[in-house]
Amino acid sequence: MPDPGDARLADYFRLRDVNLRKSIETEHGLFMAEGEKVIRRALHAGYSPRSLLLTRRRLEALSGLAAAVDAPVYVVDDAVAEQLTGFDVHRGALASFHRRPLPAVEEVLRGARRVVVLEDVLDHTNVGAIFRSAAGLGLDAVLLAPRCADPLYRRSVKVSMGAVFAQPYSRLDDWYGGLEALRERGFQLLALTPGAAAEPLPDALARIGSAPVALMFGSEGDGLSSHWLEQADSGVRIPMAGREVDSLNVTAAAAIACYELVRPPTGG
Amino acid sequence: MPDPGDARLADYFRLRDVNLRKSIETEHGLFMAEGEKVIRRALHAGYSPRSLLLTRRRLEALSGLAAAVDAPVYVVDDAVAEQLTGFDVHRGALASFHRRPLPAVEEVLRGARRVVVLEDVLDHTNVGAIFRSAAGLGLDAVLLAPRCADPLYRRSVKVSMGAVFAQPYSRLDDWYGGLEALRERGFQLLALTPGAAAEPLPDALARIGSAPVALMFGSEGDGLSSHWLEQADSGVRIPMAGREVDSLNVTAAAAIACYELVRPPTGG
Repeated sequence: MPDPGDARLADYFRLRDVNLRKSIETEHGLFMAEGEKVIRRALHAGYSPRSLLLTRRRLEALSGLAAAVDAPVYVVDDAVAEQLTGFDVHRGALASFHRRPLPAVEEVLRGARRVVVLEDVLDHTNVGAIFRSAAGLGLDAVLLAPRCADPLYRRSVKVSMGAVFAQPYSRLDDWYGGLEALRERGFQLLALTPGAAAEPLPDALARIGSAPVALMFGSEGDGLSSHWLEQADSGVRIPMAGREVDSLNVTAAAAIACYELVRPPTGG
Repeated sequence: MPDPGDARLADYFRLRDVNLRKSIETEHGLFMAEGEKVIRRALHAGYSPRSLLLTRRRLEALSGLAAAVDAPVYVVDDAVAEQLTGFDVHRGALASFHRRPLPAVEEVLRGARRVVVLEDVLDHTNVGAIFRSAAGLGLDAVLLAPRCADPLYRRSVKVSMGAVFAQPYSRLDDWYGGLEALRERGFQLLALTPGAAAEPLPDALARIGSAPVALMFGSEGDGLSSHWLEQADSGVRIPMAGREVDSLNVTAAAAIACYELVRPPTGG
């Protein structure tokens, strides 16, 4: 069995060190998946595995997974896995996959009518959870601004439960003018904002009728940039109860807004 | 200025060490708030401060906060704050507050008609975000099972943006029979579950009409226990798009379910 210094295990090195991992994953064009279910979802989505790491304790339970992975399989003791990755690999399985080039923005927007656009959502947990909501509720596409956190970073993949593999998405390469791609396809751009002057989202959707809709969300702290707010057709808000709490976590706001967007218009 | 070893700063010691902090906070009956806005919300909710820690760099900007806190104020260099707490205190303000005894379950249920019940939600980020949704959308109360994560733990407080101070809540002391408190007050117990056999939530709410409703959510991995599922009046689900992604993150599910519960019945 390999030891933690074995060069074949380099893909799995110090998985909790975000900065180090970003540079390893960019340089080698890889991403990590964790746990049998998520690894199988990556395989099902057609991602090509680089290797699979299993802990010896879970080898028997995961032998079917090992058989399904067309790449080297490394079996190590739990202590080696922990020393290598920096955490307790309690699900017993980690896999490294090759990234693929993202589809072009035009490609993911072809035929799309209900889209989420994330400006600078910086937290991988939020990105993963929003992808899970978008995929689960059936949105057609997700677009990311250039600085939005990576959906294929380990934490995003994990929180999304693999939804990042199922949900079509692309990244705008131009923050300043990138929303034009939506506008020229007739999308109504709705900017989510807690401002009291914003229109309640249900009213905006009723007013818009059948036009395609893009829901825009900004960063955790400051929300959307003023430039993107100006680019939007309307500022919209989720109706709140008027207590001291005047806004929601971006994962919660995105879930509600996507739900309202796909909800049958007849109501309950 | 005090150094990191100063006993007066003991409340702020190693804030990222969850196990150590749980024992410090339980033993001394304290909780931590971070950043001016959240600290002010704790003060506004009537929590009594033990002390305030400010970084020297932010002292001038936060002098108003220092004046508002009726407790010792410690000013330290950034490096001391980081050495003490284990992270970069970039907002420049941390406060330690005395906990209060939680109100009795009966007390938070008095007059309540829309309630969230969390069984074993273990992640502080999820607990904080769910409190923020419940408070923002105007639910009357949150009840926690005995093993649910602590809403006053630093990470929960931070993610909630202080909603944990505004939202009435209590903790059941009996997991096995605790839901009786809701049943004997006429609540319909709706268990959120991704199972295909569950009733769509909007249909369940339309069927129930005007009875008070408790929305039940389970742990991140396994959902509600079979005992609590059996105790519920109905299993309900959020309608999904039927792709591979068959469930939502608990923060997203709770946000949507609370939104659907408080949504005016006339629809959009």
